[in-house]
Amino acid sequence: MVDETILDDDALAAPLEERPDDRVDDERHDEDNRLKPEFVRSVIDALDDGDTGRVHNLVEPLHEADVADLFEILDAGDRPLLAAAIPDLMTGEVIAELNDYVRDDMMEALPPEAVAEIAEQLDTDDAVQLLEDLEPEDQAAILAEMEPEDRAAIESALAYPEETAGRLMSREFVAAPEHMTVGDIIDYLRDADADELPTEFWEVFVVDLAHKPVGTCQLSWIMRAPRSTPLVEVMKRDQTLIPVTMDQEEVGNMFQKYALISAAVVDENGRLVGQMTADDVVHIVSEEAGEDVLLLSGAGDGDINEPIRDAYVARVRWLVANLGTAVVASAIIAMFGAAIEQLVALAVLMPIVASIGGNAGTQTMAVTVRAIAMNQLTRANTRRMIWRELRVALLNGATVAVLIGVAVALLFEPQLGGVIAAAMMINILVAGLAGVAVPVIFERLDQDPAVASSVFVTMITDSMGFFAFLGLAVAAGLAG
Amino acid sequence: MVDETILDDDALAAPLEERPDDRVDDERHDEDNRLKPEFVRSVIDALDDGDTGRVHNLVEPLHEADVADLFEILDAGDRPLLAAAIPDLMTGEVIAELNDYVRDDMMEALPPEAVAEIAEQLDTDDAVQLLEDLEPEDQAAILAEMEPEDRAAIESALAYPEETAGRLMSREFVAAPEHMTVGDIIDYLRDADADELPTEFWEVFVVDLAHKPVGTCQLSWIMRAPRSTPLVEVMKRDQTLIPVTMDQEEVGNMFQKYALISAAVVDENGRLVGQMTADDVVHIVSEEAGEDVLLLSGAGDGDINEPIRDAYVARVRWLVANLGTAVVASAIIAMFGAAIEQLVALAVLMPIVASIGGNAGTQTMAVTVRAIAMNQLTRANTRRMIWRELRVALLNGATVAVLIGVAVALLFEPQLGGVIAAAMMINILVAGLAGVAVPVIFERLDQDPAVASSVFVTMITDSMGFFAFLGLAVAAGLAG
Repeated sequence: MVDETILDDDALAAPLEERPDDRVDDERHDEDNRLKPEFVRSVIDALDDGDTGRVHNLVEPLHEADVADLFEILDAGDRPLLAAAIPDLMTGEVIAELNDYVRDDMMEALPPEAVAEIAEQLDTDDAVQLLEDLEPEDQAAILAEMEPEDRAAIESALAYPEETAGRLMSREFVAAPEHMTVGDIIDYLRDADADELPTEFWEVFVVDLAHKPVGTCQLSWIMRAPRSTPLVEVMKRDQTLIPVTMDQEEVGNMFQKYALISAAVVDENGRLVGQMTADDVVHIVSEEAGEDVLLLSGAGDGDINEPIRDAYVARVRWLVANLGTAVVASAIIAMFGAAIEQLVALAVLMPIVASIGGNAGTQTMAVTVRAIAMNQLTRANTRRMIWRELRVALLNGATVAVLIGVAVALLFEPQLGGVIAAAMMINILVAGLAGVAVPVIFERLDQDPAVASSVFVTMITDSMGFFAFLGLAVAAGLAG
Repeated sequence: MVDETILDDDALAAPLEERPDDRVDDERHDEDNRLKPEFVRSVIDALDDGDTGRVHNLVEPLHEADVADLFEILDAGDRPLLAAAIPDLMTGEVIAELNDYVRDDMMEALPPEAVAEIAEQLDTDDAVQLLEDLEPEDQAAILAEMEPEDRAAIESALAYPEETAGRLMSREFVAAPEHMTVGDIIDYLRDADADELPTEFWEVFVVDLAHKPVGTCQLSWIMRAPRSTPLVEVMKRDQTLIPVTMDQEEVGNMFQKYALISAAVVDENGRLVGQMTADDVVHIVSEEAGEDVLLLSGAGDGDINEPIRDAYVARVRWLVANLGTAVVASAIIAMFGAAIEQLVALAVLMPIVASIGGNAGTQTMAVTVRAIAMNQLTRANTRRMIWRELRVALLNGATVAVLIGVAVALLFEPQLGGVIAAAMMINILVAGLAGVAVPVIFERLDQDPAVASSVFVTMITDSMGFFAFLGLAVAAGLAG
């Protein structure tokens, strides 16, 4: 462990300069760094008054990411008004920070030349984001307006599938041949024009004659080494290489596992073609980890800026699928119609068994889906996981079965208490098994386990809940 | 946009050096970079044979993060055997990479001196992780064995609440007084001993005499500037400062929003006390975004390495809570006992209305919880969100109501079809409203909306489903 490194400042300090405002200020942001409703209100009022000067004054002090947030918070109708009021503040960074849906909406309203101009201000990876979801003809019109070189970079990115490293990587990076020294690279960086270098870079990748990475140097290592040192003596040989075809979820897992700040992306032949940096990966990881809750619930993209029609299409198919599984469960109930007619208590109590089973199944399923996504659940430990979940289910089942069994025995009759307790135990065990098995099977079939597991697990726990409870009641001679 | 920056390599290249193995090799990893089951099997076999030499040979080529993965995949009983077989490979990094539960287990088996020795190898933030979940007396015993300076750093971190920047930040960073030049800082870094500097750093923070940050310099800016340039001319004044008390979820949001690689952490007086870097934030973001799915399902921590008893305690309380809400729904059904006795079809069909309503509510709730976590849903746009969800619910409700209404009208009787369609419409609208309102209310009460929303939304949709369907059936004169 080392100490905090602070340089002596006993020497005379330079005269105090003006201090910038802290980013988290009280006037415009709340304690969670969100724009205050009062601030948003004042912008909307100024827009309503048509007072573009006031709008500009209000928005000017904001960081680009906050300007983007402001657009997202405004109603769709107010967004073009805001854009018109602050043309000089509508930088490429603001556009890049916008939510996909909000951005696509705004881009569709602009002529291709204007979008092309914005795209050329951006790094390739941001420009690709800007264009990838537009209609093919809009995309083509915009690309036609761009410089050939930029166009080629974007087209090459679009040739890779969505959510792969090839699509997401930055094509701007610093690579050095292996014969260079520390002094060579420093001189090169000093002499280069700013626009020849990436906006931000944290490592220099060392490549061989075939342009294959042979090692990587963190900038701090280069700064600390004497000028005459060969780069190959400073660099680390053991580096994580990201294949262009790697899915973004795996890229996120690699960055997490190996605690990376940036990593080289290589093509099919092992040649360096781009880099991924941790600031982009933070977004990816958030998206990937956050989408499981949306997928499991059947909410599709789940973005609050998604157009209503898209949200409807994404969600209604899962509701209809659920309708199908609910009908299966109903058919099971219908088999026991005579029993229910005889003993209405069965109808009163049966949803309890189904509901708790569904909840227990969802718990196990959530744990399983998360473990699969994090690469923690593999073929090597699946059996252990199933065994573990069955033991948890045994404990959960016993607890819930005793509670409901005793309550029903007291309120209805003892035998019915025994029946509901047994049905509950069975259903929670089945839920534990299904909660692991369904996502694992989807994963083995190369399907995303978060997408459809819910429907199947719920069908199993609903059907089993009704069947076990009603079936046991009939078997016990209580009715039917 | 700039081109890829590759330096000319027309000069004669240095002789080819040995190439390191790529990290993603075919022998030990599958295509998702997980350890292959066959490889894990061979380690287990060697452990079973007591052949520590073979174990060592198998494990030695692995990256520390993979050694940690291997421990996690092994059964708890095999882990001490593996540790004993590879004492020299059990570095601080392996320990730091271990899953919390697996690590705590292993630490509890070691004497305090051994743990203290491991902790001293680590950066403070990793050492804190190692100690924070141990029993207070174990913690005290370990701290007593450490160097006073390291102990003080860890105690200061432990004084901050869990999951705040103060607990998580690295206390190692490079700060420079504002009178320094680029040459001064380069000379300082060159002359410093390696153990006086952080293991990794990406920015130099410029501070005033009171040790408050006034700006930040990316290393690349320093490298590119002439030696005589004052740091204050190179630095960016507008920087994101993280207060020590900030919750990790907000830290993750700041890094995402402002695309940070590292950021200065400041204490109550605005003084620089630490830094957070993107490699740690990637973990935090993954944990925060991933925990929503676990919390919403009531699965607690949801870690597959959590001891069974902990998993039981975490989950059973939600099952019991759900039992309570299911009983409420049952009480509503019981109110309509006479109607069900008269028309068993009601019992057969009623779970459909409750089930689809529950699903629709879960969809909206997932979207809302995610939007709150991402700071996208604020007081400024809550009303718009509710209105949006109601419109989606109207579309979903209409679709599902028509489908089930027609089917029931054909299979049972027309009037019952009308009743179930109306009940479905009502329940899906209620689900949409509850799906937004419940998490938003929890958030306004400063509660985590992911924790308990599910129980309430399900109770509302179940109860409303049964009440609307059975109540409308009775009102329509179908039964009762």
